[in-house]
Parts: sequence; C-alpha cells; structure tokens
Amino acid sequence: MKAYVHITLKDGVLDPQGKTIAHALSALGFDGIQDVRQGKYIELDLIATDREEARNSVDQMCRKLLSNTVIENYTIKIE
Amino acid sequence: MKAYVHITLKDGVLDPQGKTIAHALSALGFDGIQDVRQGKYIELDLIATDREEARNSVDQMCRKLLSNTVIENYTIKIE
Repeated sequence: MKAYVHITLKDGVLDPQGKTIAHALSALGFDGIQDVRQGKYIELDLIATDREEARNSVDQMCRKLLSNTVIENYTIKIE
Repeated sequence: MKAYVHITLKDGVLDPQGKTIAHALSALGFDGIQDVRQGKYIELDLIATDREEARNSVDQMCRKLLSNTVIENYTIKIE
C-alpha cells in the first residue's frame, strides 16, 4: 500500500525558499508569478493492507517525525 | 491560476533523504515500511488565465530551474 504525504507551511508562515524560487524565476524572465510556496512530498511504501490502519500509522508518523505541526500542515493520501 | 508541481527522483536514483526518513521511522518504532522516497512540492500562484499557456510556462520553469531532468521527474497540475 502506498501513502502520499504533502507537507506545506501554514498560511502566514514566511517561506524564504519559495521567495528565492520566485526571484530566480523572475531573473530568468518568467513574468506573472504572484507567489511561490515550497513544500515537501513524501511517498511511503507500506506493508499494511488495511487502509484505515495505514492512514492512522502515517498520521502518527507525520505528528512524530515528518512534519512540524507548529508551522506546517500535512495531508495524507492512501492508495 | 494555481500550478502544483511535484518533483521526484527517477526510479533507480539513490534517495539518501528517503533512506534517512525510513531509518528514523524504524527507530521510532514504526514497522512495516518498505521504502520511503522524498520529493519536492511547489505551489505557484500565476497571473495567467489561460490553462494551456500556464502549463507551457510552468513546464519551461521546471526544465530551466525547478527540476534537474537528468535525475528527476516532474508533474504539473493546473487549477
């Protein structure tokens, strides 16, 4: 079973990496960019066969290690 | 218009960050993890209103700056 986790900075949290990308794109001649936000994307390959169990397990992983819940949001997709 | 870009390492390319996450999760007591791959996730806020034009523009951004096409794949979603 595969789990796909997106970790993004919460609204209002400064994203210097995103700002750097936006500036670099402008410098390369790309116009019309209002904002850029960079997040993390993690694919997990799990042995679990139960969807609900897998989701709970990945939720715990996000809380304990993968994300910093003070400044980041995460979403989990199980397939 | 929003563009969502996923950048992942190609199959076969070593992912030390993913391996580190997998080890850390095991050390925390999470069993049943076969593999972890970490990628990047970028949200772009564009002024463009034409879907096709936005996609072409973001495709160029990926080729020129956002991804290293030698070792990385990218996917673009426009909304």
